Amino acid sequence: MPKSRTAATFTPPVMAARRWLDGVTHPADRPLINVSQAAPVMAPPLALREAVARIMMQDTDAHLYGPVLGLPALRDEIAAQWSAAYGGRINAGQVGITSGCNQAFAAAIAALCGEGDQVIVPVPYYFNHRMWLDMAGVTTVPLVCGADMVPTADAVAALITDRTRAIVLVSPNNPCGVEYPAATLRAFMDLARAQGIALIVDETYRDFDSRTGAAHDLFSDPAWDDTLIQLYSFSKAYRLTGHRIGAVLTNPVRMAEIEKFLDTVAICPNQIGQRAALWGMQNLSDWLAGERAEILDRRAAITDHFPQLAAKGWSLLGVGAYFAYLAHPFALSSTDLAQRLVADAGILLLPGTMFMPDDMPAGERQLRIAFANIDRAGIATLFDRLAKVTV
Amino acid sequence: MPKSRTAATFTPPVMAARRWLDGVTHPADRPLINVSQAAPVMAPPLALREAVARIMMQDTDAHLYGPVLGLPALRDEIAAQWSAAYGGRINAGQVGITSGCNQAFAAAIAALCGEGDQVIVPVPYYFNHRMWLDMAGVTTVPLVCGADMVPTADAVAALITDRTRAIVLVSPNNPCGVEYPAATLRAFMDLARAQGIALIVDETYRDFDSRTGAAHDLFSDPAWDDTLIQLYSFSKAYRLTGHRIGAVLTNPVRMAEIEKFLDTVAICPNQIGQRAALWGMQNLSDWLAGERAEILDRRAAITDHFPQLAAKGWSLLGVGAYFAYLAHPFALSSTDLAQRLVADAGILLLPGTMFMPDDMPAGERQLRIAFANIDRAGIATLFDRLAKVTV
Repeated sequence: MPKSRTAATFTPPVMAARRWLDGVTHPADRPLINVSQAAPVMAPPLALREAVARIMMQDTDAHLYGPVLGLPALRDEIAAQWSAAYGGRINAGQVGITSGCNQAFAAAIAALCGEGDQVIVPVPYYFNHRMWLDMAGVTTVPLVCGADMVPTADAVAALITDRTRAIVLVSPNNPCGVEYPAATLRAFMDLARAQGIALIVDETYRDFDSRTGAAHDLFSDPAWDDTLIQLYSFSKAYRLTGHRIGAVLTNPVRMAEIEKFLDTVAICPNQIGQRAALWGMQNLSDWLAGERAEILDRRAAITDHFPQLAAKGWSLLGVGAYFAYLAHPFALSSTDLAQRLVADAGILLLPGTMFMPDDMPAGERQLRIAFANIDRAGIATLFDRLAKVTV
Repeated sequence: MPKSRTAATFTPPVMAARRWLDGVTHPADRPLINVSQAAPVMAPPLALREAVARIMMQDTDAHLYGPVLGLPALRDEIAAQWSAAYGGRINAGQVGITSGCNQAFAAAIAALCGEGDQVIVPVPYYFNHRMWLDMAGVTTVPLVCGADMVPTADAVAALITDRTRAIVLVSPNNPCGVEYPAATLRAFMDLARAQGIALIVDETYRDFDSRTGAAHDLFSDPAWDDTLIQLYSFSKAYRLTGHRIGAVLTNPVRMAEIEKFLDTVAICPNQIGQRAALWGMQNLSDWLAGERAEILDRRAAITDHFPQLAAKGWSLLGVGAYFAYLAHPFALSSTDLAQRLVADAGILLLPGTMFMPDDMPAGERQLRIAFANIDRAGIATLFDRLAKVTV
């Protein structure tokens, strides 16, 4: 009997890791530090909550079905702000709203790929991408990165077959934190176009990029939408993880295909969350700049505190946006190490093995820290605890 | 080049029909009657909106990620209310919350089926079910209903193969409105169990069933979850279509598979909508009883006014919940007729062709009316207009 779609993939890593907490008690003077998930733990700003509560009372449409591809005003706002930010021309017809960025990825893959097709993904990858490819019957073709955790377009040519449909990049990267250079993205775009395949760029963490100005020039190309599919999330920028709003940007022909998928798995993105995202875009740019500065300070704290780990044999493979990606010095798989850290050090983080195929041993030396929720003091405590670990 | 997943299916019917409105103006004394979609057009009750607006301000968790399978309190509430309503034992671990009932269906199919598997579906079917099966690489095996639009389990045996994974029933039915007899559901359950396949029962419209008490005895079977997968929607009961909350009930092993799918396409159902659904379940039972009475009165109005159409050669094939399903008397495909009705009669409804495969000609004589949004007077007007139609 053939496998079902879901049997073709693994248990969600965040959930699996949360189960490691079962039965473990943490001393009062050493509370758990949970750096396993890239998620704000504070509510959105009061002004946003007030605005959305008013909409809840006054706007009937906010409770009823809306267009499959999302609220027109939100699509317009993204088109306008993106055009300004990237120095390109993006119109509302090239923007679709999704129920979160995972769904944007799923929809893009459904529009591009059939059973047995292939998608090239740098390793380590974002595990939900791998899970969807598995469930969609698409083969994940791993692209090994260099020591700087940045993939190179030159390495791709050898991986392309007549079943290749897309390359997927995440920048700033999850899990590595690395901000891909503009030239890297440009090289991938040129290669994808030359090969007649799509380039999917997931920019969930774009609002926390350390660089000023546009992170790449892909949208400045008037024909960007023949190749580029950009994904975005409202979860991080305005602390709206529970509202489930994301976006996908592509050409109208592909958008019509994406619309079929979204109609069938969602009907429409929830209307309250869309209004929250729109209000955030229109009113919270200064607040978001402050959030970014805080995240960049936490990133600096990672770098500041890392030397004590370096002295113990650890390496910092990448840091940026919400993530630090580390190599540990122990003769122990990261899966086992991560589980032991829960009881032994009061730390919940994800092992590198969750971000790559089972047959790639590099993951056994690697760990991801999602540091956005811990401040400088928390980062100092985290690194103190890690520096004391022996196995 | 093989087709992509989305290329394997058709354009969403509700969207396609909405495009028929483009460029058509309606006289002031004959406004459009839109009976194309099963959707409330009024906001949820004020008390619900006030309650959720308060939650928006006070409950930080309502803005942040929650469990993939939904808010524990909502799963508990469903388990308790369902156990009482169906006279069975349902626990929270057998309940998962989804981003709408379409997603519940997609998740169930992903957990059951792989590429090339088969699912048996009575015809006419709910088109989004067909679309998902197409995109999942699953073959839809049509089961022809009798003249009463009710399928019979006896007819299924001949359709079962070693690739059959499930039978899908919708009761009360969309598009036919028919309430399947308890004995019919029981016969399908027994057959599915004997064959070792799943029985998916979509009860989106259960709150508007004309029968009092449980519509079936499937949950009274202590082993119900070895075979039954029930789907539900909060969209209709509390007018929450824009909030996107549904549910799936099955055994914990299948639920763990469903969890993989939901984690990847949604991460979690939106938190505000889950709280709205929970508040509705806990506070709106009297209000919902009134809603049901109103819908049943509209159903009665359909029956009361139908004779004028019968006199012109129309047939009422089914009526119940939100839908009336009609056969028209014209020598014209329902697809063409439905498009002409927009300009000629100021009516938007869906043709039967949208609810069955292209090679089944019965749909060309059939039309679906989603009457929940029009009151007695509106139904009278609708039937007056239809009675005047000539082609």
